[in-house]
Amino acid sequence: MPVIVQKFGGSSISDAPRIRRAAQRVADARACGFDVVVVASAMGKTTDELIALAEQVSPLPDRRELDMLLATGEQVTVGLLAMALRELGCPASSLTGGQAGLRTDGVHGRARITRIECGRLERLLSRGEIPVVAGFQGTSDDGEITTLGRGGSDTTAVAIAAALRVTEAGGYCEIFTDVDGVYTADPRLVRSAVKLPRISYEEMLELATLGAGVMHARAVLFGEKYGVPIHVRHSQKPDQGTMISRENPNMEELAVVGCALKEELGRVSIRQIKNTVGLQGKLFTALASANIVVDDIMQTEQGSATMIAFTVEHADLADAKQIVTKTLVELNEGEMSIDVGLAKVSVVGVGMRMHAGVASRMFRALGEVGITIHNITTSEIKISCIIDTASGQRALESVHSAFGLGLGSNATIAMQIDSSRV
Amino acid sequence: MPVIVQKFGGSSISDAPRIRRAAQRVADARACGFDVVVVASAMGKTTDELIALAEQVSPLPDRRELDMLLATGEQVTVGLLAMALRELGCPASSLTGGQAGLRTDGVHGRARITRIECGRLERLLSRGEIPVVAGFQGTSDDGEITTLGRGGSDTTAVAIAAALRVTEAGGYCEIFTDVDGVYTADPRLVRSAVKLPRISYEEMLELATLGAGVMHARAVLFGEKYGVPIHVRHSQKPDQGTMISRENPNMEELAVVGCALKEELGRVSIRQIKNTVGLQGKLFTALASANIVVDDIMQTEQGSATMIAFTVEHADLADAKQIVTKTLVELNEGEMSIDVGLAKVSVVGVGMRMHAGVASRMFRALGEVGITIHNITTSEIKISCIIDTASGQRALESVHSAFGLGLGSNATIAMQIDSSRV
Repeated sequence: MPVIVQKFGGSSISDAPRIRRAAQRVADARACGFDVVVVASAMGKTTDELIALAEQVSPLPDRRELDMLLATGEQVTVGLLAMALRELGCPASSLTGGQAGLRTDGVHGRARITRIECGRLERLLSRGEIPVVAGFQGTSDDGEITTLGRGGSDTTAVAIAAALRVTEAGGYCEIFTDVDGVYTADPRLVRSAVKLPRISYEEMLELATLGAGVMHARAVLFGEKYGVPIHVRHSQKPDQGTMISRENPNMEELAVVGCALKEELGRVSIRQIKNTVGLQGKLFTALASANIVVDDIMQTEQGSATMIAFTVEHADLADAKQIVTKTLVELNEGEMSIDVGLAKVSVVGVGMRMHAGVASRMFRALGEVGITIHNITTSEIKISCIIDTASGQRALESVHSAFGLGLGSNATIAMQIDSSRV
Repeated sequence: MPVIVQKFGGSSISDAPRIRRAAQRVADARACGFDVVVVASAMGKTTDELIALAEQVSPLPDRRELDMLLATGEQVTVGLLAMALRELGCPASSLTGGQAGLRTDGVHGRARITRIECGRLERLLSRGEIPVVAGFQGTSDDGEITTLGRGGSDTTAVAIAAALRVTEAGGYCEIFTDVDGVYTADPRLVRSAVKLPRISYEEMLELATLGAGVMHARAVLFGEKYGVPIHVRHSQKPDQGTMISRENPNMEELAVVGCALKEELGRVSIRQIKNTVGLQGKLFTALASANIVVDDIMQTEQGSATMIAFTVEHADLADAKQIVTKTLVELNEGEMSIDVGLAKVSVVGVGMRMHAGVASRMFRALGEVGITIHNITTSEIKISCIIDTASGQRALESVHSAFGLGLGSNATIAMQIDSSRV
């Protein structure tokens, strides 16, 4: 029988009634002829509460001990979910990450999965039982409890689906969350946004890093690597969600499948600096060492001088400023300026490779509503414009409408694309 | 260096400040030249809260899954305690019961310890680290998480002390709790009660089962079996508590070391029944099958008829009545009557074996304050009288005073004993 790996996130199992409802979803999948492996996160805000408790005891808690603490969150949920499943007459056994065979390296707090020893999962499935696996955690080769970091439960689910080779028999991975699926834009910002029935891994990756927030990029990457289809759907609604899978020919009919907005960005611009070999390496290594996540990097040349600009989240701006200042002092050249209150609006679509005119259409849409574009970055399947945060929502709505992503219109957009891309 | 196993109960680690204080107690013991192994219970009422949560999901939660759930309680505490210890500069590593080598049978919810594989504990100690072990839990030989049932954390601590042979180098077990130690009577009921500096395992066992509530009988039995001295003391006060150890000659100077009161008892009396072979077995097997804990059993004969009476806690009385009624119907003889509102007052002391007149002194003390004795049961080191609950506290005070157990007087009581025991 095909196997579905069903993963329930924190908000979908935040109390006893929701846990019972989650168990019912599992029972329903079995009734449809699937074998099921369940992966669960910690209930509601449990992980945040445990971290707060740890910080009351130790301002910088030891990483190993924090893993010991945090791993309990998922262990509670799997015990309860297995009880709820048995209550529905479904034989179920909860497993810690370690018991499920999830082996990781020994980097506490952000361990990487090294392999999954599937023996126990396969034995349970062959006996008709439902393994209920604690997400987000594993054990290292010397038996230490580790956690995978944020997004770890999604990754656990996709990794188990890959290890069990569920796709060979028509199985896939199903992520139950608190959104309906992946939309053409954030429906809280753009009223006419519509749910996408399918999206490619690459598109989802661009949207995930752009702050669409539906799924963690790490799990999508895992899905792409092992070709595991991922169905993202709402835990409290019966509707189909969005299937993330390899791109197929039909997908390319659409040049753009969605757009996204990332707010609260700051920009650091460096001018009057010679483009010597190693300049960029020196600068961004210093930033990375301070754990500053750089959003986009833009570089242009003007005569003999180079201009480098990059964006970071507001929270990191003060640190970034300090590091760049120090680096420029060491280099004894360059001028730095800082801008705040920026946002990034992006359009994403694998079809962009095959269709021209996507960028110009986007720029025109922003110009028509009077929005100044401060910077542009592009990838194979994404175009991003840095604009003022104050114009963010208006920009998103305008771009969404320009690509015909709105309700009832997205069947026709492939035909509306202009003839040149830039 | 001698090793102390220090166990912290739920009330002594119920929040972050208390966890930090517990860590300080451990650091203090190290400063005094001891190596320390820490055993911890779940924080405060965590176990009860987890059981309540389970019952919201499943009225009769599966035992295996309940163990998966409950084991998280201690795991949270050991993570936090190890963090707090590191914060004080003490190298510490938390361990689940399984990681600490605690192996049990597979009876979920009330597993028995089969052995302790001490390798990891010994390695940590030899490196100067403090192992912080989750009490109450272990793993079965096939890697399943098990719990030891109530009193399990005390038992874990004593069992680890026994397995590490800590007594050979002058070590012992220390139980931090919310009482000062073992008193001559419950100090909430008898104002003049004094703390005992030492008590024998046997005396403590009688007091534990009599509801003195300081320590679980199972841990005391373990201590007795392996000769591990157990120091019971208050977690928030520096004072010495009570040392539970093998009786020594000095102990026998005291005929009675303490007295106790157990309230809320009911009595089932069966009359007019033939004392046939197997009668008692049939009756009490039926009660045990229904998980009814029988307190005391009394049997007397009157001509050809037998009278059997037993006491149970009020909560079990309705079930006991039903089972006895059914049994008498099957036997087609006997009459049953029920009494409620009873209590049991007891005196305990290993010295009783060597001193006569203990029983008569007790009966006289009760008679002098006008209390009717409904039943009497005795053991080698204990005498109990069943009385009306309404007279309970008066009976306890009267007996406590009769044996000179009060403040400033217990040095002389051995001399005050009458010449005949009954």
